[in-house]
Amino acid sequence: MSRENIEATLVASNANIYYTTGRFFKGFVYIPMGSDPIWFIIKPDIFDKEDDVVIIRKPENIPGKLKELGLELPATIGLEFDTMSYSDIERLKAVFPDSVPLNASSSLRKARMVKTQWELDRMKEDGIHQSEVYRRVTRCYKEDMTDVQFQIEIERILRLEGCLGFVRTSGNLMDINLGSVIAGENADVPSPYDFTMGGSGIDPSLPGGANGTTLKPGQSVMIDMNGSFNGYQTDMTRVWRLGELPSLAYKAHDCSINILRALESIGKPSTPVADLYNKAMEIAEANGLAEYFMGHRQHASFIGHGVGIELNEQPVVMAKSRDILLENMTIALEPKFVIPEVGAVGVENTYVVTSTGLKSITIFPEEIQEL
Amino acid sequence: MSRENIEATLVASNANIYYTTGRFFKGFVYIPMGSDPIWFIIKPDIFDKEDDVVIIRKPENIPGKLKELGLELPATIGLEFDTMSYSDIERLKAVFPDSVPLNASSSLRKARMVKTQWELDRMKEDGIHQSEVYRRVTRCYKEDMTDVQFQIEIERILRLEGCLGFVRTSGNLMDINLGSVIAGENADVPSPYDFTMGGSGIDPSLPGGANGTTLKPGQSVMIDMNGSFNGYQTDMTRVWRLGELPSLAYKAHDCSINILRALESIGKPSTPVADLYNKAMEIAEANGLAEYFMGHRQHASFIGHGVGIELNEQPVVMAKSRDILLENMTIALEPKFVIPEVGAVGVENTYVVTSTGLKSITIFPEEIQEL
Repeated sequence: MSRENIEATLVASNANIYYTTGRFFKGFVYIPMGSDPIWFIIKPDIFDKEDDVVIIRKPENIPGKLKELGLELPATIGLEFDTMSYSDIERLKAVFPDSVPLNASSSLRKARMVKTQWELDRMKEDGIHQSEVYRRVTRCYKEDMTDVQFQIEIERILRLEGCLGFVRTSGNLMDINLGSVIAGENADVPSPYDFTMGGSGIDPSLPGGANGTTLKPGQSVMIDMNGSFNGYQTDMTRVWRLGELPSLAYKAHDCSINILRALESIGKPSTPVADLYNKAMEIAEANGLAEYFMGHRQHASFIGHGVGIELNEQPVVMAKSRDILLENMTIALEPKFVIPEVGAVGVENTYVVTSTGLKSITIFPEEIQEL
Repeated sequence: MSRENIEATLVASNANIYYTTGRFFKGFVYIPMGSDPIWFIIKPDIFDKEDDVVIIRKPENIPGKLKELGLELPATIGLEFDTMSYSDIERLKAVFPDSVPLNASSSLRKARMVKTQWELDRMKEDGIHQSEVYRRVTRCYKEDMTDVQFQIEIERILRLEGCLGFVRTSGNLMDINLGSVIAGENADVPSPYDFTMGGSGIDPSLPGGANGTTLKPGQSVMIDMNGSFNGYQTDMTRVWRLGELPSLAYKAHDCSINILRALESIGKPSTPVADLYNKAMEIAEANGLAEYFMGHRQHASFIGHGVGIELNEQPVVMAKSRDILLENMTIALEPKFVIPEVGAVGVENTYVVTSTGLKSITIFPEEIQEL
């Protein structure tokens, strides 16, 4: 905040209210530079009054309440320009007519990139639950199932394991149900969303993921199902197969694993994020697999992303990234390949950046497994 | 648009792209007043070129493409101020530096209130699927289940029936998984969200709905599970019970049904929406049930809402509404009561406004059923 001359930030988005309080309420978190945050709560009225909690009816009450608390109004006010609606921001600007409004989205995103030990503990817990679900994936399969039916059984065991059933994402282009199961040619259908993989979905209103393909021999089945168990998330992909796949599919899957091993060792604090992308692309090219890398008919421009409260956080692992890895960042890396007529292959893990390299918190065998 | 002097609208939100095209893509729909919309698509590149489709890389390409098509740039441009982020709107304003930016959110919301026959057909289809799922709810129950376990089995049959597994909502205060199952005292826990009913949820990051309550005799179990099967939605609630409930619960449930019957007959084109709210409140008060109506510890200020592409559309059925019912509006009415220590009771149906009154499209027995 201080680097950007923001004297106070007024947090209003769901993800950032949760980030700054560990709770969720309808209201605002006011964060003056250098002192404790104040929770301005509209509803519900269920908080302990000992906390720094002020009940309000609407945001217009905030300046008066600040004055009652003996606080001066800030000369500059940070607001979440990138996530709050234009109308909401205009309203909040009018609440602080004498404060210069500045965009606080970037500083909040940057703060959230590096996790505290409390956050890392939540995410490790997610990784354990998610792996436990993946251990039961094979049992969800029955012959002649469609990809959708298979996904539904995985959703059920996810939920029974404690998954909240709700995927918190950032931005407009991340509509998704509880994850993505893509099989066979459906993997090669381009999607409008900002996920690495596509699929046509079962309805034009949600054109991504499983599309009703009947699972049959010669197909890969990529499982990228949600890991939200506690307000944080892990992101994890493994691949199953029906019968044998062409050798190209195994070669590409091995290449994905090799890319992860290479990135795990170079992914230390102070490594440019772009180096991870470039190294991955270099290995894919050296193996003659560039045309299948990160899609075939349509290629994603990134191979990974930050993950935490939201499924897609900063940094984005892409060629033009200017971010630098920092200790305790958490990133999901997903070097994947789409093999025409076969499906998608590749592995995704969620990693913590440590002084010795990337440490996976989504531990589960990485080879292609048979259904 | 013409009433608000909007010469052209640039639609960018997911729900409105779907509304104006019946598809979803990353891009924009440009709607000049009085002529056909133009689809500006960033990705995916899978559309027929015969359509009015123009491929772009970024919104800054739009003015040049309009000129190529022989179109003048508009004097005023409608943008979705209420749903697009402040940063996105600032960017689009800069794309049209000589056009006066106006808020198109309201006119789009108003247009979407009244459904076309195509839309009504989709919603009737949703209602049939959702009722089919409710027919199987009793079979999902097993003794000593928790509300969460019960919900998971209902989610599974919803998905097997074709539910997309994704609830499209409007605004920040509508985080939800596939619906709400609330039992016993959990019904009386206030939530921060803009749903009529509360519940604590199973994690502070998603404080709504089922909370792990073990289902036991003397409890009502309110089922308000999602009806999204095709880009549109219906909204429907029914109540089950374990053993017998106190007579107050049955009385309140009957009152909910009586309220619906009364509103169905007065809900004709040209009826003020506020009349529906006031009539419902009048009946609840006449029955001595006001303290339980629309919540007990915390009361919702509305008894229904528009429904369509998004679960919560206009109009909102509340005392201060200035909307007037129009033929082929679709609204969900949910007069509900929270009975302390018992749970929630009441019925919710989705209705079409017709010349003879409200016609339900969520047809299923309304009495409390035994589990």
